Amino acid sequence: MIYFDTDYMAGAHPRILERLTETNLEQTAGYGNDAYTRHAEQLILQACGLPHGEVHFLVGGTQTNATVIDALLARHEGALAAETGHINVHESGAIEATGHKVLPLPSHQGKVRADEVEEYIRTFYADATCQHMVAPGMLYISQPTEYGTLYSKAELEHLHAVCQKAEIPLYIDGARLGYALASDEADFTLKDLAMLCDVFYIGGTKVGTLFGEAVVATRPGLLNHFFPLIKQHGALLAKGRLLGIQFETLFTDGLYLEMGAHAVRLAMKIKRAFRDKGYEVYMDSPTNQQFFRLENTQMDRLAREVSFEKWGTRGATHTVIRIVTSWATREEDVDRLISLL
Amino acid sequence: MIYFDTDYMAGAHPRILERLTETNLEQTAGYGNDAYTRHAEQLILQACGLPHGEVHFLVGGTQTNATVIDALLARHEGALAAETGHINVHESGAIEATGHKVLPLPSHQGKVRADEVEEYIRTFYADATCQHMVAPGMLYISQPTEYGTLYSKAELEHLHAVCQKAEIPLYIDGARLGYALASDEADFTLKDLAMLCDVFYIGGTKVGTLFGEAVVATRPGLLNHFFPLIKQHGALLAKGRLLGIQFETLFTDGLYLEMGAHAVRLAMKIKRAFRDKGYEVYMDSPTNQQFFRLENTQMDRLAREVSFEKWGTRGATHTVIRIVTSWATREEDVDRLISLL
Amino acid sequence: MIYFDTDYMAGAHPRILERLTETNLEQTAGYGNDAYTRHAEQLILQACGLPHGEVHFLVGGTQTNATVIDALLARHEGALAAETGHINVHESGAIEATGHKVLPLPSHQGKVRADEVEEYIRTFYADATCQHMVAPGMLYISQPTEYGTLYSKAELEHLHAVCQKAEIPLYIDGARLGYALASDEADFTLKDLAMLCDVFYIGGTKVGTLFGEAVVATRPGLLNHFFPLIKQHGALLAKGRLLGIQFETLFTDGLYLEMGAHAVRLAMKIKRAFRDKGYEVYMDSPTNQQFFRLENTQMDRLAREVSFEKWGTRGATHTVIRIVTSWATREEDVDRLISLL
Amino acid sequence: MIYFDTDYMAGAHPRILERLTETNLEQTAGYGNDAYTRHAEQLILQACGLPHGEVHFLVGGTQTNATVIDALLARHEGALAAETGHINVHESGAIEATGHKVLPLPSHQGKVRADEVEEYIRTFYADATCQHMVAPGMLYISQPTEYGTLYSKAELEHLHAVCQKAEIPLYIDGARLGYALASDEADFTLKDLAMLCDVFYIGGTKVGTLFGEAVVATRPGLLNHFFPLIKQHGALLAKGRLLGIQFETLFTDGLYLEMGAHAVRLAMKIKRAFRDKGYEVYMDSPTNQQFFRLENTQMDRLAREVSFEKWGTRGATHTVIRIVTSWATREEDVDRLISLL
Repeated sequence: MIYFDTDYMAGAHPRILERLTETNLEQTAGYGNDAYTRHAEQLILQACGLPHGEVHFLVGGTQTNATVIDALLARHEGALAAETGHINVHESGAIEATGHKVLPLPSHQGKVRADEVEEYIRTFYADATCQHMVAPGMLYISQPTEYGTLYSKAELEHLHAVCQKAEIPLYIDGARLGYALASDEADFTLKDLAMLCDVFYIGGTKVGTLFGEAVVATRPGLLNHFFPLIKQHGALLAKGRLLGIQFETLFTDGLYLEMGAHAVRLAMKIKRAFRDKGYEVYMDSPTNQQFFRLENTQMDRLAREVSFEKWGTRGATHTVIRIVTSWATREEDVDRLISLL
Repeated sequence: MIYFDTDYMAGAHPRILERLTETNLEQTAGYGNDAYTRHAEQLILQACGLPHGEVHFLVGGTQTNATVIDALLARHEGALAAETGHINVHESGAIEATGHKVLPLPSHQGKVRADEVEEYIRTFYADATCQHMVAPGMLYISQPTEYGTLYSKAELEHLHAVCQKAEIPLYIDGARLGYALASDEADFTLKDLAMLCDVFYIGGTKVGTLFGEAVVATRPGLLNHFFPLIKQHGALLAKGRLLGIQFETLFTDGLYLEMGAHAVRLAMKIKRAFRDKGYEVYMDSPTNQQFFRLENTQMDRLAREVSFEKWGTRGATHTVIRIVTSWATREEDVDRLISLL
Repeated sequence: MIYFDTDYMAGAHPRILERLTETNLEQTAGYGNDAYTRHAEQLILQACGLPHGEVHFLVGGTQTNATVIDALLARHEGALAAETGHINVHESGAIEATGHKVLPLPSHQGKVRADEVEEYIRTFYADATCQHMVAPGMLYISQPTEYGTLYSKAELEHLHAVCQKAEIPLYIDGARLGYALASDEADFTLKDLAMLCDVFYIGGTKVGTLFGEAVVATRPGLLNHFFPLIKQHGALLAKGRLLGIQFETLFTDGLYLEMGAHAVRLAMKIKRAFRDKGYEVYMDSPTNQQFFRLENTQMDRLAREVSFEKWGTRGATHTVIRIVTSWATREEDVDRLISLL
Repeated sequence: MIYFDTDYMAGAHPRILERLTETNLEQTAGYGNDAYTRHAEQLILQACGLPHGEVHFLVGGTQTNATVIDALLARHEGALAAETGHINVHESGAIEATGHKVLPLPSHQGKVRADEVEEYIRTFYADATCQHMVAPGMLYISQPTEYGTLYSKAELEHLHAVCQKAEIPLYIDGARLGYALASDEADFTLKDLAMLCDVFYIGGTKVGTLFGEAVVATRPGLLNHFFPLIKQHGALLAKGRLLGIQFETLFTDGLYLEMGAHAVRLAMKIKRAFRDKGYEVYMDSPTNQQFFRLENTQMDRLAREVSFEKWGTRGATHTVIRIVTSWATREEDVDRLISLL
């Protein structure tokens, strides 16, 4: 069986495990008060072009979203997000569990549109009863989205401008950011992205670490008293240096982008092969998640040797499937998949 | 500098890193749906003598306490705990953040007394206004306590009997359980402990893993719908097998107890040395945390070569310090410490 | 100026104020532990045909919804509701503030459809990732809806059957229930409604009391430990007898239905008049809220003498307005309104 | 039977019911957007000498405390309070239900001491692990306290100075404030009190209204976005004018102080009588709550004709009882009580 279910099926990039092993018996202070963590912060801020930014390391994506959103919102505010956004669908109510409503916007292949965000905010404040409603206190987007699609630089600029006008922060969930940056269709760099939002996170779990997400606040004052909030949300790792060492490795010698490029190249190879062999590309994703619409008999045949996720049925005869590559995907497995089409 | 600050300063036991490295490029399903996790669960239930128990793996201690307590309590209930208990003091309000009050009980060197628990509950229900107060919905204790002290088997039996009579669960925070089990003064085994409470957790972070805590429900039905709660609390690890592999290793060939014994032996050696050299043992702990009362000049001299935690000042001239050993403490560092006394 | 903005603009039915005045200097125990409250409970259970039901009196609608929903849901569950439902739109996030997500369903003139509820639940449990999503733990509907529309008895039966099959409670927000029961189109009685759901509330604030809502649990065991939850939610009135006296009066000599009938008769008179004079009825509501689509010039003319709510613009030239009657609406004001059309 | 159980056993001062009756059929906008509410706000700010203050009317005490505390605290902060404080004991966990810990301080007959507050804060920030603990974000006191005792002006000044130095707000729960202001031992006026704290509330429920509490922010910017928070906490009254009319009446012609004086005069008369007849005054309260220590046989005899609260047993033979007067207490009942001693 070869696996394309998701991008967190393997452990960590070997260089990360090597570094963890080399440093294993060193003794350092806990909770991120160590030199590895300091260094990782510097490397990230440098890569982002943010000399005055702040970096915080958390363990996982759901807890990162819940903690950041809790820090950014006042009690009467909610988070605008695509109705397909991870926080609205797949976090078991973690955002609501901290007291905040997710305010759903229409999803356009996973993306929100700046004009619709603007219109939502305009309509909200034009409503005489808006004090009885949940105020839009921030905008959440994911880059790439849960559907593998990308916001262009122009789209990010537009969203950021709308948020700045409304005086609400723009927060980008970068769980798979490495696969966005490495995409041929990405017309933005990490530095661009850092300039076009207020807070974002660089996902490690899906891009090469055992676990870990690096929250970047693009300027001071955005995430006040964030340390006790991280602890309160159960997102503080006792052996914090493990996060520092992993991200230090990711941001040394371009490893983060290198892993992203590997996964995207293989994903494009797969997309071309499916297309060439007459399969329907369901969503034209330029990143590491690919969606195809198959006849159920085709799908069942493929499933005998390939593991993947069924995204949803389409009528009685067809199903949309998701094929995901990662930094750990082997070219030989991709070739085997293609040979089975 | 030699370090005795705390028990989470090093990485993981080398055997754990070896296993993580060996399995690193395998692809498995996420969220604990893998064979390593299944196996680790079996090993733990076997070690606990709980054929009908349940095991859940979470990442860290604070999130484990918050998630378990949230699962055990109804909305109108709070958790009884020693006023020195970790949940009452050192979790940045994580329990209250999920809506529950910690109901403090007097602390006797970190321990609660069964008669005082019983009296609290009796008084509560005798109060005509008890509906306006937070009902005691569970009892939280830590074994060993935050002061390194131990509940004896008889004390656990008494506490358990009080809880059973009141029909509230007894939950044991075992962040340092390995150091309790290995103590000379422990008159209970892991199997005993498992029979004398409802839910407990076996801490990995402080006893040899990179991270991870194993929650054990001693029978079905105690932690209903726990999976989505784990996710909601941000305590679900995407690459769940990392927890499975680590605990599988801990519970193979007696590694967990072996590590506990190592740390306790060195702690006892240190205690004897301090005592022999005329220092005052502040708290007579039989586990890996030791507390001594030093003159400030003595303390300052020691601090030039030894790193430790200042537990609290005692008047203008003395300070209580904490010396902690762990599975990773080297005998040579202990000898060096002793030579400096 | 004559007022048709909403149904909570006047005080209470005069008979209620008389009763409050007569009993004013009596001394009774607080928090509903008084004979008036006991009697009101009996009268309501009798009117509902629920010998084994329970009644709890709370102060206002939003707090009632938040408290009941908090009592009915487990921590990992959310409340299904029409996306136009009061809890999803107009309660400033009170439901989310208690940790629960509102799961929006399509709104059909304010109503949900039983087949769509069923399909939602079916799809949810068919999803392999459903443990990562918020489970539908109850269904919330309002009768009449926020648009004045009514569920027929058959529709309630269907919704109830779907909920029973899914083993989730059906909760009916009856903030304006009196205006539903009095409608010509109501093919159900209060007793029918009580048989077709699990919990509902009989609204006082909008139907004749100064304030107050009577929560009815149709059988024991649905609202466990509800008293401390009421207190915790700030919904417990110290002078609880004020609620008892008001509801006692409402359910004596048919006052509740009499007030409902008065408001609905006048609302129908207004609807007929608008229709006869060629105005467009925007929503064909059979209860006390009426919606009309007016040209803006027409609307502005009317607004010189009549106070009403602008419901929403329809293009550049038209607006939908809402005209609301209540138990306190005077026939002469209705006639004056009609003469202005 | 004559009643001295508590101060919320009767309805409202007759003048209030008269005003509610006179205005009953008027139609006004909801939620406090009416002229009565505006006028009541002005009267209160005038009485407090706070031209730049803000007033908000809520329904009850527990919800007022929960809403104000939620508004004043950041997510990582808790509220300092006497361990006997209402928020720590008698609100069914309402503060924790909004996510905040109550940080208990020693109670000195219901009062906290400024030096102990200062020491708590100093110790907190001196602790190297304070980021892992709940930060003291405000101070809650009640005036009079739950034991009827009073803070002197000097004590308030000291507490306020400590809070200002620590840059945390001082919030005063004035559920029974009228009985404090009317006390012979009160060396402060309402204007003094308003100068010596940040936020306080003037209780109506226990001092003459049917219900209602007036929250006073002594300057702008303290209770940001308070309206949606009130709604979110279920504390917003639809017919808001009922609060306005009641407080307008309280603050017209000195009614509030007049009622306070009546209750305190009778309470002092009772205290003198108990003392003169050789009973032990358990707590020397200068306000409307009086505490006496009786032999159980004495108590049982008294209880045949007098209703009061048993405050707590003292050994096997004695009990402390509480006798409470209010604006509604009749002199003849007091005389009857005294004759029974």
